[in-house]
Amino acid sequence: MNGKLITFEGSEGAGKTTALNEIIKRIKPQLGDRLVTTREPGGNVISEEIRNIIMDSKNNNMDARTEALLFAAARRQHLVDKVIPALEAGKLVLCDRYVESSVAYQGAARGIGEQAIWDLNQFATDGLKPDLTVYFDVPIEVGLDRIMQHRTNEINRLDKQQHDFYVKVHDAYEEIAADHPDQVVKIDATQSVDEVVADVLNLIKSRVPEYFN
Amino acid sequence: MNGKLITFEGSEGAGKTTALNEIIKRIKPQLGDRLVTTREPGGNVISEEIRNIIMDSKNNNMDARTEALLFAAARRQHLVDKVIPALEAGKLVLCDRYVESSVAYQGAARGIGEQAIWDLNQFATDGLKPDLTVYFDVPIEVGLDRIMQHRTNEINRLDKQQHDFYVKVHDAYEEIAADHPDQVVKIDATQSVDEVVADVLNLIKSRVPEYFN
Repeated sequence: MNGKLITFEGSEGAGKTTALNEIIKRIKPQLGDRLVTTREPGGNVISEEIRNIIMDSKNNNMDARTEALLFAAARRQHLVDKVIPALEAGKLVLCDRYVESSVAYQGAARGIGEQAIWDLNQFATDGLKPDLTVYFDVPIEVGLDRIMQHRTNEINRLDKQQHDFYVKVHDAYEEIAADHPDQVVKIDATQSVDEVVADVLNLIKSRVPEYFN
Repeated sequence: MNGKLITFEGSEGAGKTTALNEIIKRIKPQLGDRLVTTREPGGNVISEEIRNIIMDSKNNNMDARTEALLFAAARRQHLVDKVIPALEAGKLVLCDRYVESSVAYQGAARGIGEQAIWDLNQFATDGLKPDLTVYFDVPIEVGLDRIMQHRTNEINRLDKQQHDFYVKVHDAYEEIAADHPDQVVKIDATQSVDEVVADVLNLIKSRVPEYFN
């Protein structure tokens, strides 16, 4: 496949989505149709139907492994329908979250085990790895503060379970970054949005310069 | 878990369902509530919804790996909702098809690879293996003849693709049986239904005699 796949990862409160929207706005004029931006489930019918099952509140008795299998199934179909065709057509694909999110959230935080989720997603992706993973890194307390600022209408603190969950996700991402230094690049997401965007743009342009000539 | 799990496997045309219905009829009066009979998706809402996605003809662009992940997800939830609670309550659980069906149909016949499907289902079952798998064995030509007898309203032959698919399923089952001699017991399903039922009943009574005392 001639295209390149760049994925974006980070805990809640890392500012990932805000920065990503700005990054897309900045590079879209230059790249045009050579840029494909997506996130799971990515608009295909099958993956949307799978997501509906996961998100349906009446299914709150869903087992954690069932959920992990459904996320992997939605990921697989999204890859087949959207990502792989774009990569085969030589496009630059930016994907908001990928396997590493499942490893952090389901493997580590929900307690299934990180290696089991890596293995499951090896099956789902048939080994398709990102060319680059941009990890929006903030210290735990900064991330928690940002979440609180967005939750003015809710109870103004996280309970211990939510706090522990957040810490597990954060620690899992740190471990993933440490274990895959060639793939995962940390961005200091405590900076201003403009600074974060500038860092990510520099990173992308240095990693896939062929799209910016 | 104090209960016992017995699964039933075989190619289409092996007479599995007919025999299984008769077996249940024969032992239900003695076992009463200690007997649980099931098949995936097993009536739970989540697994039924997953099956609906798989079976929906408008989803005919579904990737083989997506399908395998969805079958595994439905299996997981069926286990958690129905099979594991029954085993924990000490029941004898008879389940029509289990992991071995996925290995034969998706791993071998659909070409994903048998080991990949074993590994996927290791995740889905969290290692829960049957105490006994009853394999309804018929030679390929006998099975194909029986399928034809049930298809009087359809085209009266299988095309080459269907034939090859059938052979792959059959060969995969033979390999599974050979590789797991302590778990999988072959029943000669070329016999009359009464003879098959008698053989299976003898087998079950010898393997789980505690339910028949």
